[in-house]
Amino acid sequence: MPLRMDTLHRLEDTINQRRKAAPDESYVAQLNARGLPVMARKLGEEAVETVTAALAGDRQELVGEAADLLFHLLVLLGAKDIALADVLAELDRREGTSGLDEKAARSR
Amino acid sequence: MPLRMDTLHRLEDTINQRRKAAPDESYVAQLNARGLPVMARKLGEEAVETVTAALAGDRQELVGEAADLLFHLLVLLGAKDIALADVLAELDRREGTSGLDEKAARSR
Amino acid sequence: MPLRMDTLHRLEDTINQRRKAAPDESYVAQLNARGLPVMARKLGEEAVETVTAALAGDRQELVGEAADLLFHLLVLLGAKDIALADVLAELDRREGTSGLDEKAARSR
Amino acid sequence: MPLRMDTLHRLEDTINQRRKAAPDESYVAQLNARGLPVMARKLGEEAVETVTAALAGDRQELVGEAADLLFHLLVLLGAKDIALADVLAELDRREGTSGLDEKAARSR
Repeated sequence: MPLRMDTLHRLEDTINQRRKAAPDESYVAQLNARGLPVMARKLGEEAVETVTAALAGDRQELVGEAADLLFHLLVLLGAKDIALADVLAELDRREGTSGLDEKAARSR
Repeated sequence: MPLRMDTLHRLEDTINQRRKAAPDESYVAQLNARGLPVMARKLGEEAVETVTAALAGDRQELVGEAADLLFHLLVLLGAKDIALADVLAELDRREGTSGLDEKAARSR
Repeated sequence: MPLRMDTLHRLEDTINQRRKAAPDESYVAQLNARGLPVMARKLGEEAVETVTAALAGDRQELVGEAADLLFHLLVLLGAKDIALADVLAELDRREGTSGLDEKAARSR
Repeated sequence: MPLRMDTLHRLEDTINQRRKAAPDESYVAQLNARGLPVMARKLGEEAVETVTAALAGDRQELVGEAADLLFHLLVLLGAKDIALADVLAELDRREGTSGLDEKAARSR
């Protein structure tokens, strides 16, 4: 599904456009109006739902929760003016520096 | 940064290749050997760290935690044989059905 | 406030009594009817709210979230037939074995 | 186990005494020295472990994680100068106002 590769970037653009819309017209604008703690909380809650879906839900439930998690991660990053590209660059950087010795680079 | 668009798919491939490596050679293999509850727990812990970084950390800390969160989401999805493309398709589907009326489609 | 010392035990009794009530008459019964993943998810969500209240909320918000967290912990334990006394005994045991050398006993 | 009723209050006293100890002598002092975000994160991580133990662990694992969760909740409350009694008073207040109609008082 090569066309899906840019889904996250398009979603990021959409989120950034909607951020300053009227809160009653956009969920993204509503979250931004409620403030960073609410956006952070939403991310945390979606992660909890992803955890429980992985352990006790079916496949489609996990797909849906993972989608919610990605959506709310993009909302949170956008509110902090962090581009998805910055996060992907960090993932690239780790892969570049760790190479085959992935474990050493990740162990903490 | 157009070349970054496929970072997540390359990372997904890497994770899938390493899943069956020897646990002492790969962090991904180690997580898979420890089982689904550990992978789910890791995702949840990275989300908690993302939440605290968003509220109390600096920009680079949030970038790093978001990268950790994406990495462990891919590990968890891989362990459940769910492709990132399936999650992106779900995000596309939502955008397609909701159109401009994003909020209605997302309200729960 | 010495009379408060048994608040948690009274709450535990109340939860155990209500567990088998009709779901439309009791929130506890409703949670139990929905199943363990929902109760676990609720605990996780209240913890996320406690985290955000501690970092970004006022004092009363944190008190309220901590109360929610304790309530949902008792609901979850009750659903697994674990008494609060068992958890307190575990805390006593740790204190007994660790004595002054608290850190050694807790380090992991 | 009536003597256990004050376990949490004794633990709270212990935590308050150790808070200002040398960080290398006390885990509680170490957490306080690292700051509120670390204490909040610890609470969140223990909650995630409680969730996964409830869904995928055995009984003793859940008892242990619930004990960890209570411990780190007391550490976090202590760092914010909130007494456990304040949280228990909030739980008492809710029970007092909701009476038999628990669900109405708790629905949100």
